[in-house]
Amino acid sequence: MRIEILATGDEILGGKTVNTNYSHVARRLLEEGLTPYWGTTVGDDRASLLAAFRQAAERADAVIVNGGLGPTVDDLSQECAAEAAGVGLVLHEAWLARMEEFYKRRSRTMPPNNRKQAMLPEGCEFIDNPIGTACGFALSIGKARFFFTPGVPREMKRMLDEQLIPRLLKLGGVSGVTRLKRFHSFGIGESRADEMLSGIDGLAGGAIKLGFQAHYPQLETKLAVHGADAAEVEARLAPVEAEVRKRLGNFVIAEDNDSLESVILGALANRGGSVAVAETVTGGAVAARIASLEGAESVFRRGIVARDLGQLGEATGARASAISSGVSPASAGALAGALKASSGASHALVALVQLDEGADRLEFGGAIELAVADASGVVTRSARMSGGRDWVRVGAAELALDCLRRHLLGLPVEERVDFERR
Amino acid sequence: MRIEILATGDEILGGKTVNTNYSHVARRLLEEGLTPYWGTTVGDDRASLLAAFRQAAERADAVIVNGGLGPTVDDLSQECAAEAAGVGLVLHEAWLARMEEFYKRRSRTMPPNNRKQAMLPEGCEFIDNPIGTACGFALSIGKARFFFTPGVPREMKRMLDEQLIPRLLKLGGVSGVTRLKRFHSFGIGESRADEMLSGIDGLAGGAIKLGFQAHYPQLETKLAVHGADAAEVEARLAPVEAEVRKRLGNFVIAEDNDSLESVILGALANRGGSVAVAETVTGGAVAARIASLEGAESVFRRGIVARDLGQLGEATGARASAISSGVSPASAGALAGALKASSGASHALVALVQLDEGADRLEFGGAIELAVADASGVVTRSARMSGGRDWVRVGAAELALDCLRRHLLGLPVEERVDFERR
Repeated sequence: MRIEILATGDEILGGKTVNTNYSHVARRLLEEGLTPYWGTTVGDDRASLLAAFRQAAERADAVIVNGGLGPTVDDLSQECAAEAAGVGLVLHEAWLARMEEFYKRRSRTMPPNNRKQAMLPEGCEFIDNPIGTACGFALSIGKARFFFTPGVPREMKRMLDEQLIPRLLKLGGVSGVTRLKRFHSFGIGESRADEMLSGIDGLAGGAIKLGFQAHYPQLETKLAVHGADAAEVEARLAPVEAEVRKRLGNFVIAEDNDSLESVILGALANRGGSVAVAETVTGGAVAARIASLEGAESVFRRGIVARDLGQLGEATGARASAISSGVSPASAGALAGALKASSGASHALVALVQLDEGADRLEFGGAIELAVADASGVVTRSARMSGGRDWVRVGAAELALDCLRRHLLGLPVEERVDFERR
Repeated sequence: MRIEILATGDEILGGKTVNTNYSHVARRLLEEGLTPYWGTTVGDDRASLLAAFRQAAERADAVIVNGGLGPTVDDLSQECAAEAAGVGLVLHEAWLARMEEFYKRRSRTMPPNNRKQAMLPEGCEFIDNPIGTACGFALSIGKARFFFTPGVPREMKRMLDEQLIPRLLKLGGVSGVTRLKRFHSFGIGESRADEMLSGIDGLAGGAIKLGFQAHYPQLETKLAVHGADAAEVEARLAPVEAEVRKRLGNFVIAEDNDSLESVILGALANRGGSVAVAETVTGGAVAARIASLEGAESVFRRGIVARDLGQLGEATGARASAISSGVSPASAGALAGALKASSGASHALVALVQLDEGADRLEFGGAIELAVADASGVVTRSARMSGGRDWVRVGAAELALDCLRRHLLGLPVEERVDFERR
């Protein structure tokens, strides 16, 4: 089935808004086993909209139109859809009543121009929007089925998942259910993960599609599983899921909606623990990842960032002699011990980075010294990364958090990651 | 002149890569007085590429094709361009030599499949790429002039600015030069800025186009100026530029490539000063903005983040009694004084946030208490913002940095910003 995604609106056409709605829709389709075939972007312009609808009606089987359902005069989707389908616009009484109710509950009166949002092409299929005033609708133009969706990302995403995808699967003759299982890993690149998981999609006899999405320094491994019903999906997924966990091993930092930092927070909260962080060069990124989580109030104690080891020593209460060796395992360990004592946290994490001298460049690297202190003592980890200033910073912050995760979960902190150069 | 932007590649079509190249090109065109008219996205698929080229050749005057110039078999732009234009591919000897030289300088041998990147449609115009192995080219298909550009953003952007825009301006009969002047402001929304600058584009008799780009909490105000030559552009811009500065006043935090944090860094460096930061709830974001800048080594002394005022007191050395009033101007001031003393920095910035109780929601807000300490004493600033947890955090960090900027530049720190609710 050929699916076209058609974005409308001057803000998108002119580049003022980056078209993240497009990439979201395309990714979701692929995850469901559907294939985006063509993408079109046009402005709030009647002639362009009509031309785009007519072209899409000829080349696609299904068209997802995004945007142009608002109450203002430059929102033209309903009008142009009706014109392209050769029908008129009629008032959808039920939607008008819902909108009036929507305003009433907020103690406001519906502005008269919102009425426009209930004018839909004659004979179209109404599609609910439980969280906004722009309802969706579907109608056939030429040989294609068109689905109109609101431009507000939150409303579009919900309508896509709840309303459009089931209709598209039916239209494409795809039956059953699909589930997306996600693994987040740190330390392995896409090509290495691909090797490590070679043949894994064969385990379920083709019912599972393996995919990757790299966002340095993390890699997301996705299993899209299809089956007749939820039970079949679970039965197919279980052995493959277990095998992925086994093969990727300690590199898996979290699954599904969990993250590296939420796993750390959970592990600390479970044992009534707390954490303090001291870092250089990473600009406070390590602490920020934990401190910004909901529920971090009871776990995150203190974060200290400085460009200078001496400043870090003063702020943590480490003896100057203990850090006289510069960025080294000994200094990292001494700072971690001092920070644990001065902050009263159960765990202290220290991340030191010594960037190379000279101008930033692709080969630019840095030495990384990490330490975790807890009641049982101090563990340290040394690494070297390269790839430019920002690359090293981001990699060092991730390595530091992963070091804490591994320590908390009883895993080895010394396992080499792909981004290391030594 | 109708310009189409045509993105190619499975990664873009499938949503794996967000199409930021599209929005960059569209924005740059608008800034130069050119108008994007249509956007198309297709995958690495011969039939789709040919169909897309042929449709664009009919509806557009100029087409910017992005991607598909790489060395691998799925890079099809040259081939399909030649086919659509009805010509063959010929080896561009000079580009092949340049590529070989490129590899030689890196002490590597050019892989044989890179030769493909020097195979260009017969009779096309060569377009240089000084920083990569994918050269660009231009040729006419149907009634449109096609410009082929590499998918790598850095290479595409440079080619767009240096090579494509002059050609497009010539093609569109636009003569002379255009300059883009940018003002970054904090504290005013787009509609208020629009009011404050009302009539300003009239000052230059229509030769200046005013535009805004909001990325909360900052607003970018752009003046696109056109003239016969650089001198005319400067002459037209000077009075308008001065008027924008006057009307937006203290809300302008930086201009052109400067930023709020680089202005702060510059002001501190100029007086041989340094800064330490203590913050709650903002997760270290205030310190991170300064600490991550190049050249911050000599200025940024120390950053402390904690969720708890007591922890912040211990880490800065403030007396417990001085912060017993909780998140208040008195506590912020006491912490700033203590931090200045313990860090040895010339300036200390404190940002305290007290979020509302309860679940995150759109009306969710927080109280913000800021203080700056320097040799002359302590200034404080209180504010309240709402709009959800993240919105308050981001706004508070910006307000804190702006407070420091204003103090360093001798401007009032108390000026109300649009995002405040009180």
